[in-house]
Amino acid sequence: METTLSYDQLATFTNAIFQKIGCSKEDAELATKVLLMADLRGIDSHGIARLSGYVRLWESGRINVKPNIRIIHETPSTAVVDGDGGLGLVVAPRAMEIAIKKAEQVGTGWVSVQHSNHFGIAAAHGMLALQKDMIGIALTNASPLVAPTYSAERLLGTNPICVCIPAGSEPPFIADMATTTAANGKLEILQRKNLKAPEGWIQDKTGKISTNPHELKAGGALLPLGGDKERGSHKGYALGAIVDILSAVLSGANYASWVPPFVSFLPIAPDLPGKGIGHFFGAMRVDAFRPADEFKKHMDQWIHRFRTATTIEGQEKVLIPGDPEREMEAIRKEKGIPLLKPVLEDLEYLRERFGL
Amino acid sequence: METTLSYDQLATFTNAIFQKIGCSKEDAELATKVLLMADLRGIDSHGIARLSGYVRLWESGRINVKPNIRIIHETPSTAVVDGDGGLGLVVAPRAMEIAIKKAEQVGTGWVSVQHSNHFGIAAAHGMLALQKDMIGIALTNASPLVAPTYSAERLLGTNPICVCIPAGSEPPFIADMATTTAANGKLEILQRKNLKAPEGWIQDKTGKISTNPHELKAGGALLPLGGDKERGSHKGYALGAIVDILSAVLSGANYASWVPPFVSFLPIAPDLPGKGIGHFFGAMRVDAFRPADEFKKHMDQWIHRFRTATTIEGQEKVLIPGDPEREMEAIRKEKGIPLLKPVLEDLEYLRERFGL
Repeated sequence: METTLSYDQLATFTNAIFQKIGCSKEDAELATKVLLMADLRGIDSHGIARLSGYVRLWESGRINVKPNIRIIHETPSTAVVDGDGGLGLVVAPRAMEIAIKKAEQVGTGWVSVQHSNHFGIAAAHGMLALQKDMIGIALTNASPLVAPTYSAERLLGTNPICVCIPAGSEPPFIADMATTTAANGKLEILQRKNLKAPEGWIQDKTGKISTNPHELKAGGALLPLGGDKERGSHKGYALGAIVDILSAVLSGANYASWVPPFVSFLPIAPDLPGKGIGHFFGAMRVDAFRPADEFKKHMDQWIHRFRTATTIEGQEKVLIPGDPEREMEAIRKEKGIPLLKPVLEDLEYLRERFGL
Repeated sequence: METTLSYDQLATFTNAIFQKIGCSKEDAELATKVLLMADLRGIDSHGIARLSGYVRLWESGRINVKPNIRIIHETPSTAVVDGDGGLGLVVAPRAMEIAIKKAEQVGTGWVSVQHSNHFGIAAAHGMLALQKDMIGIALTNASPLVAPTYSAERLLGTNPICVCIPAGSEPPFIADMATTTAANGKLEILQRKNLKAPEGWIQDKTGKISTNPHELKAGGALLPLGGDKERGSHKGYALGAIVDILSAVLSGANYASWVPPFVSFLPIAPDLPGKGIGHFFGAMRVDAFRPADEFKKHMDQWIHRFRTATTIEGQEKVLIPGDPEREMEAIRKEKGIPLLKPVLEDLEYLRERFGL
């Protein structure tokens, strides 16, 4: 049921598609790199599987392939960027570069983005800070799929938090997580296999706990990290809310249930309070706090302490955030990226659609 | 079993104790205000119940009551503050004021603190930003009580995240949460009543899930938000880790299992990698992104959308982070603060100890 293609094969194809819909050569290259970083790192739900989704958004007029991405307000350490309806895959790295430049100048840089679209995996942007010895932060809001604690309605997206921290001889600390118990991609795996979801992942449309992975199509919702009130779902809800507010209320994008859906067949809500979807980026120069070498030496010690901790029975070691994705990246760079049949069919459709 | 005292009665007493151990009049007032904010807001575990704990730390030489709190490194938007072993209740608000001043100048301010002690509730510091139309952030690490996913060892504190966001006619959004499923205070309630803890709160010393609220005394651990891997405990672990790194690796404080315990009868670990415990504060001027009035109008709309959402059966409304604490504060300001017998006995001991 799987076919494996090399990164280069997928990159050539993806790049060609982005150019076919009208992206500049430079933008197509950037969008390709960001999109496929998801596949390399094993986040299959956010990579090439979504390429046809981006194309459909463009077909329905919801993507501007020649955006004028620009700063509309700034201070020495902050900026608001207007993404001009561009691909989030292009808007996001540009905005992160602005955060990094400001950090070079005044120690930290913080950029809130309006009028953008889905930006792939957050780590693709947060990690840009690492090569400059900076801590990188990337947040985004997303289509409403999550019900806050006590709500029967979906008011938040899976709103991820990504924090990337450089280390010395150890690989960097890279946390990138949806603020829900389980990412939507994990639910999709259960849907394909028709398996039950664990309790704490989803509720039905009235708010009752459900284990049916197809519940979302029937008006159900994903649950905030914690799962239920007794286990702290109000904390997951608060985290998702903070991401929504920093990404959208601060920038002038749409928030809460008004965030435009990623899938083109769902309508956009009426009376929008802002423009497009919102992101938030941060860059903090490590040496704005202490000498970078000193910091990295202590990060190595931190990582070593966790990696060598006594484990619970049946587990080999305590993982550092970013470990599984880095290991996957090494494997897939060498052995290629496996694609499921529906994804291959999608790519075949795109090939025909654009006469490639 | 409970006696109710007014805020003013408790404040007069607390202030006198802090002066008795050698704090200046100004510091005693500040520490009192911060400590009792916990009692007012219903976070009983972090308020006057801990006064004798602070005194015991002072008795064992772990608190410097005349600290020289100072900036040891800075850039336009950042600073590292040396708390000089002072009460966290005093060091933290001073550090937050530095973050606020930097935000006034360059849009945002970020302060990492070394050589401090426990700082009460994080919201006491984050909320200082609100009166300036800023978003306030307060993080701290704490004594190791939490086992990361797959670890049998306790390597993190309950490491809270606090984010305070101003609104217009609505009250502000105030999230202040331990990065564990349940705060230690909630476990203490179950201990006193000898009730079982829900699954997902604690594990025993080998890492097996436990419902015994006394497990921590036997070498067990609190669990990160999520509870178990299937329900996302690796996310709670990553959040607690981020708090630890920003608070301590960035500042030069102690991190991971080296964080000094709050209780004076537990020894300090050998070979400390830093000084005291660490905090991290942030202040972001709302108008460094968009006009404050515009932002607040949209925050009001955000809050209204959540508050009026359709609820699940049996629930009256969706709460906004900060709602329960604000309601409690109104009640306790009027009717006083109820104290349990062991807390009253503690205060009686302090009264005799200092001849008040």
